[in-house]
Amino acid sequence: MSGWAAWFAEQRTAREDAGLQRALRPRAADDDVIDLANNDYLGLSGHPEVRRAASDAALRWGAGAAASRLVTGTTTLHAELERELADFTGREAALVFSTGYHANLSAVTVLADKHSLIISDAHVHASLIDAARLSRAAIEVVPHNDVSAVRAALAEAGDRRAIVLTESIFSVLGDAAPLADLAAVCADHDALLVVDEAHGLGVVGEGGRGLVHARGLAGHPHVVMTATLSKSLGAMGGAVLGSAALIDHLVNRARPFIFDTGLAPAPTAGAQAALRLLRERPALPSSIHRRGGELAERLGVPGSAGAVLSVPMPSPRVALAAQAAALADGVRVGCFRPPSVPDGVSRLRITTHVGLDDERWAYAVKVLCQVVDDYRLP
Amino acid sequence: MSGWAAWFAEQRTAREDAGLQRALRPRAADDDVIDLANNDYLGLSGHPEVRRAASDAALRWGAGAAASRLVTGTTTLHAELERELADFTGREAALVFSTGYHANLSAVTVLADKHSLIISDAHVHASLIDAARLSRAAIEVVPHNDVSAVRAALAEAGDRRAIVLTESIFSVLGDAAPLADLAAVCADHDALLVVDEAHGLGVVGEGGRGLVHARGLAGHPHVVMTATLSKSLGAMGGAVLGSAALIDHLVNRARPFIFDTGLAPAPTAGAQAALRLLRERPALPSSIHRRGGELAERLGVPGSAGAVLSVPMPSPRVALAAQAAALADGVRVGCFRPPSVPDGVSRLRITTHVGLDDERWAYAVKVLCQVVDDYRLP
Repeated sequence: MSGWAAWFAEQRTAREDAGLQRALRPRAADDDVIDLANNDYLGLSGHPEVRRAASDAALRWGAGAAASRLVTGTTTLHAELERELADFTGREAALVFSTGYHANLSAVTVLADKHSLIISDAHVHASLIDAARLSRAAIEVVPHNDVSAVRAALAEAGDRRAIVLTESIFSVLGDAAPLADLAAVCADHDALLVVDEAHGLGVVGEGGRGLVHARGLAGHPHVVMTATLSKSLGAMGGAVLGSAALIDHLVNRARPFIFDTGLAPAPTAGAQAALRLLRERPALPSSIHRRGGELAERLGVPGSAGAVLSVPMPSPRVALAAQAAALADGVRVGCFRPPSVPDGVSRLRITTHVGLDDERWAYAVKVLCQVVDDYRLP
Repeated sequence: MSGWAAWFAEQRTAREDAGLQRALRPRAADDDVIDLANNDYLGLSGHPEVRRAASDAALRWGAGAAASRLVTGTTTLHAELERELADFTGREAALVFSTGYHANLSAVTVLADKHSLIISDAHVHASLIDAARLSRAAIEVVPHNDVSAVRAALAEAGDRRAIVLTESIFSVLGDAAPLADLAAVCADHDALLVVDEAHGLGVVGEGGRGLVHARGLAGHPHVVMTATLSKSLGAMGGAVLGSAALIDHLVNRARPFIFDTGLAPAPTAGAQAALRLLRERPALPSSIHRRGGELAERLGVPGSAGAVLSVPMPSPRVALAAQAAALADGVRVGCFRPPSVPDGVSRLRITTHVGLDDERWAYAVKVLCQVVDDYRLP
């Protein structure tokens, strides 16, 4: 056995001993489970108009973009989607990426280098953490949602360019960032605030325009917004939204943009169709909050600023058992364990969806109340 | 004006002064240009069966995978494609990612950490360079295709885990790596050789199985293979191929896999259909080499190991002018300028395609010979 085979085996044994070993479980297209684990909050991934738009785009354009965006992988589909995303969120310009990871890696690495300072909220997504590392900037991690700590860190920036990383709605705990205060502090220090709206777009703010818009920051010169096209918009991909000058800078400098094949036609058109549906139905996101509030009350957990309810569990193994019990009754929920949680606490992660009819939603609520009752306390 | 607006403006002016400012140029679906800039080497992105498979998948599954792969974003489509990719390349197992960038970031960061040594060929793709940086390993860049330099670097590894990064067919210059020698040197030192087959899969080896397979290394325990689904396979996405233990390790440890929404159904099915077509037509890749050899001879440049012909140009501006002249005659070629070139030399990058009929190919050859004649010498 080579040293590598032995090392893989040791690593696996250590994961198994800690109850952290995971495996992929493929689902079928006709899977009838009520899925409250996914991030398709508005049910738009499977909406007939979104399916049709994605399907038609594959027929019309082919299965791929065939090249990187600057070479010949930019289609009029990409340009239209970028215009519509910027219009919807009230930002000057937008750039679409293959994934939200690419968007975050790009935004951070074109703004910060080894001479810069990055101040990062302790709970930000893995893609922002990796982006900060990749930038080679000095990194200061501040306590979660602590504006004073951000202010203090910025005061030490000196003449370094500084950026502050946060999410609008945090992906695991579902809470919101104090964006207005953070933007004001950043403006005071001429720092940029990079806000990941992955879980805010389509969920919060007027018609789902996101938390940046809801806080009156859409035109703020010190706010950079990133987003995904794979959650409320039901497709795949990511975006950065900000000034035209920022977007031009990204097009020319962002390695995960320049050296990547363009987003495929089908998800590009799917996201566009979902965005158009969202514009036509501005009340859709509010149903998320009505359902989420009701479920939170029934489960005895804090309400969510977004679509994510977080239910702490006593251990990774108990969390897994609770998840399996819900699934046995036809309801799939997320089970987040280290290293996918910001605080080391294993939890069920339940997303509230608008795509389900009232009857299926009521059934899911019943199942979840029973499971949480059975498993939450050791 | 904020300091950031001024900085963006300065950066743009510097790019303009150096002739390096770039902008996106969206193309239309009915664009009639002969496209020798893209990487759709086999013309499969637009093949009727591939379009249909991608289109049907969007209708059947929706526009997105709706969640990360470990949560509920793994469909039977992903599992099938992974099995078929592993079978085709002769490897034990495969894992599909949203992009080739994600595949490379993942492969390198799960194998190397701050205690490791990464030895990287000087010409590897940006995604491998970023992956090495992100891993925090010590990095030694060795001269291009220099096996002795790799051996010397490995001799200094001591008891550090070591990995060696290369491509099979290099993306800009189109030359091949000495894979058999590299694998032997790696085995001697119990190092892993990570080979990016982005431009090898579907292009070289028996039936397009890639250079790892062609060199008899498909079963080699010290060879890890990465690939893209966005080039010969005409869709989007990436893959890592290797032992089942490696794939299990990736599933559990790779942040750009764990924290990313799964590849959308349409490109997943598109890549699968393209792979099946390739299996049915094992002679398809050989046409690339016939056409490429003929064109290289006419242009007076070295032949290519893969599908990429590289034509050096005297300056970024002349390269741009030559590209524009070809486009005016209906032929699109790539124009690679710093920072997208490994050696600082601007060049036309011409990809040989099987998708074109003989008449259009002959026309493209005529146009390119004229343009290169007009612009190559200052």
